[in-house]
Amino acid sequence: MTIEAIGALLEKEFPQAFYPGCGLTIERANYGDVRIRKAFHEDHLRPGGTVSGPTMMELADFAMYVAVFSAAGPQPLAVTTNLNINFLRKPAAADLIAEARLMKVGKRLAVGEVTLYSDGESEPVAHVTSTYSLPVQK
Amino acid sequence: MTIEAIGALLEKEFPQAFYPGCGLTIERANYGDVRIRKAFHEDHLRPGGTVSGPTMMELADFAMYVAVFSAAGPQPLAVTTNLNINFLRKPAAADLIAEARLMKVGKRLAVGEVTLYSDGESEPVAHVTSTYSLPVQK
Amino acid sequence: MTIEAIGALLEKEFPQAFYPGCGLTIERANYGDVRIRKAFHEDHLRPGGTVSGPTMMELADFAMYVAVFSAAGPQPLAVTTNLNINFLRKPAAADLIAEARLMKVGKRLAVGEVTLYSDGESEPVAHVTSTYSLPVQK
Amino acid sequence: MTIEAIGALLEKEFPQAFYPGCGLTIERANYGDVRIRKAFHEDHLRPGGTVSGPTMMELADFAMYVAVFSAAGPQPLAVTTNLNINFLRKPAAADLIAEARLMKVGKRLAVGEVTLYSDGESEPVAHVTSTYSLPVQK
Repeated sequence: MTIEAIGALLEKEFPQAFYPGCGLTIERANYGDVRIRKAFHEDHLRPGGTVSGPTMMELADFAMYVAVFSAAGPQPLAVTTNLNINFLRKPAAADLIAEARLMKVGKRLAVGEVTLYSDGESEPVAHVTSTYSLPVQK
Repeated sequence: MTIEAIGALLEKEFPQAFYPGCGLTIERANYGDVRIRKAFHEDHLRPGGTVSGPTMMELADFAMYVAVFSAAGPQPLAVTTNLNINFLRKPAAADLIAEARLMKVGKRLAVGEVTLYSDGESEPVAHVTSTYSLPVQK
Repeated sequence: MTIEAIGALLEKEFPQAFYPGCGLTIERANYGDVRIRKAFHEDHLRPGGTVSGPTMMELADFAMYVAVFSAAGPQPLAVTTNLNINFLRKPAAADLIAEARLMKVGKRLAVGEVTLYSDGESEPVAHVTSTYSLPVQK
Repeated sequence: MTIEAIGALLEKEFPQAFYPGCGLTIERANYGDVRIRKAFHEDHLRPGGTVSGPTMMELADFAMYVAVFSAAGPQPLAVTTNLNINFLRKPAAADLIAEARLMKVGKRLAVGEVTLYSDGESEPVAHVTSTYSLPVQK
């Protein structure tokens, strides 16, 4: 699926998560290889001026979801079965970048990793691995 | 720390996450043994009428945070280093209950598990393990 | 499946892991609720006199495997898809006890947790969550 | 630390895991970037002719250990606090290759990922993230 097709599907299926003005931009979506930008918003801050952990988990989950679409086609009923996150550094008060890459796309499961960066930084702020269960193909 | 003391600390340190009307209630907070209720709100829904994964991850992270406070005292600078979640069943459109329990409270790390339920159900909807890094004591 | 039936299946299917004299004893195997003992052997030690991490991971994986058998019947082709372990305390130079409990037994996936103890101690030495993929039923 | 210095330290501190003839070869050890080969041995097989999960977990843990040494110097008392593994494909009856890379080397914690391959294959058989706790520097 292309960036445009994925965006249109998300707006239709996930109007609460992805809509004009939501702050999420799909910057790349090749087969299982995805880059998402989340615009900085002060609501994401936690004490110490860093972006909150749940904000990072939500972005990683969204990036995996887009990666699954990009590799396995439109699967709005794909569901996360496992997500493991290691928080590595305090993110700056800046946009977050998610680089997602699928390591396996099987008949039942897709497994990928997502590395999260503060925009402009080379060292990651968090690393995620995640598994999605794919609906049975009819 | 008591429920009241933890609530007061959270309101002061995390006014964006915990405030009157936020929907989170600390129902129990013994030493490392915590129960949190998150009131249902339709904003948490995803396609299929279930509560979203990020909503569950955010609640689990919050419950661990309260559990750390309940066992190790006021530590607003404690930070999550790892969170692993297994999604088990689709939650109903109902309140979410988080039962958190610390398995270790060391000098540097606290490790716990959180089981999430839909209110009134006996089978869990998700299970989390998480590690918090504790600031060095002066 | 009973303890005896599981033991006989393991001896047939996994003669390298489970055989007379291997040091593993199935002490309980109810539906998804299992207790395994691993006899202490000095080969498992690492520097500092504690049992090695891989020894604990191997025992946890075995306990999950038995738990899957106990709940879903003989499934020698069930395979681990994910295992997450938190090491909590240094185990003593003693038998290891694994208490495994399935949290979900679905059509495709079984998810459980395993708590590991040094024999005679009340505080766990490690905690594991793990997912097994179950073969398609014909 | 160089490959030779790491090997000598391991032989001294972990004579049960690393010794002449153990089948493990450190093929690369730059700062936090390590490649380990584990020679195939039929004892590692499980039903279906694939290498067992515990064999892969043990290799990944060893590779992380070497990566910590390569980046943080001789730390025989470094201990694993968390290991998360996703099994992706059935490994062939061949040597296993572990590519480990540290994502963070902090004062207290080192976090890395390990990708495991069957020798000669381009698709990974398993992916691991792991955290080591580093002893306090005196």
